[in-house]
Amino acid sequence: MSLIDKLQWRYATKKFDHTKKLSAEQLETLLTAIQLAPSSYGLQSYKVLVVEDPETRERLREAAYGQSQLTEASQVLVFASKTTIDAELVTDFIGSVAKTREIGTEHLEAYKQVIMGAVNNLAEDQKINWSHKQAYLALGVLLTTAAEMGVDACPMEGFAAGKFDEILGLKEKGLTTAVIATIGFRAAEDDFSKLAKVRRSKEELFIHV
Amino acid sequence: MSLIDKLQWRYATKKFDHTKKLSAEQLETLLTAIQLAPSSYGLQSYKVLVVEDPETRERLREAAYGQSQLTEASQVLVFASKTTIDAELVTDFIGSVAKTREIGTEHLEAYKQVIMGAVNNLAEDQKINWSHKQAYLALGVLLTTAAEMGVDACPMEGFAAGKFDEILGLKEKGLTTAVIATIGFRAAEDDFSKLAKVRRSKEELFIHV
Repeated sequence: MSLIDKLQWRYATKKFDHTKKLSAEQLETLLTAIQLAPSSYGLQSYKVLVVEDPETRERLREAAYGQSQLTEASQVLVFASKTTIDAELVTDFIGSVAKTREIGTEHLEAYKQVIMGAVNNLAEDQKINWSHKQAYLALGVLLTTAAEMGVDACPMEGFAAGKFDEILGLKEKGLTTAVIATIGFRAAEDDFSKLAKVRRSKEELFIHV
Repeated sequence: MSLIDKLQWRYATKKFDHTKKLSAEQLETLLTAIQLAPSSYGLQSYKVLVVEDPETRERLREAAYGQSQLTEASQVLVFASKTTIDAELVTDFIGSVAKTREIGTEHLEAYKQVIMGAVNNLAEDQKINWSHKQAYLALGVLLTTAAEMGVDACPMEGFAAGKFDEILGLKEKGLTTAVIATIGFRAAEDDFSKLAKVRRSKEELFIHV
């Protein structure tokens, strides 16, 4: 099966088979894909919560209009943006670049100033939007990788972000929920898996210039 | 090579080899991946411009701080969000669901009302942000698919969106630039391809609950 066939195969899973869990290796592969996702300047201004605790998942389900994926999927992944994007974050990132590439931070001063300039140009709500967008990019990498592996997933926006933040103690961690994905394996009886995929035609979606 | 190895292999390409172009088949595969990307409610509230015209690309380059990828890559893909997300868009989408799944729109009335409720709940700037986030998700699908195929890409935010909108005549089309990606093949002399990838450690990026 080509990757395109696998992207055809995937769908936003409504009913997971709660008896099927990802293997430790499958979960690790998906987390590695998220880790490798690109982000603006490489800042990765988000964290990802891997939620398995049943009690927490019950509470998250309540805060997500009772949707069953929250408790029936193998794991719940919560993409949470950092609420403070400032000089400290940039300095920390530059330190990480210097360490990984084994160069002195003095060689990265110009790069640091470019990032600082970009960050300082954004108002607080723009910073959160910016981080949220990076989280969605990582979500796209996750969903494609899951499809490639034959793992089911459901990207979800239908939840009360404020309640998620509260349940997961995100405010204290300087984080706020951007978007979530549930991962696992579809239940045989999920009729949504049998529906034809609806997508705009290429003529409608693309404009050639 | 596993997909993870390919995600390691990919990087934000700074110098493309302008003599190498994607085959028609490769381009088609990437566009199909974008077409298959999931989006909120399936609305796909964006279009993607596939820019090949040299003159237009010169102008886009000027509006992107002179970055060479705009003219040296094989294609420039511009993800552009719809500026009007309203009842008409939702009705049009529901019509498309009915047609694809061969059911009457009367069976989709409840679903339509759910989407209408969500759309009506958002202020104009929130709608654009929402669409932009969906475009970033599609960008993540594109970048992962490109990596899987051994095609290079560079996701880019460093451009004047207003100027892009003007050059591409997007305002008249009810669109505004969200993010862009250049695609093609890396130049042998792009030193950035040789740098170690900088990513947060898993301990730093993930929180297990």
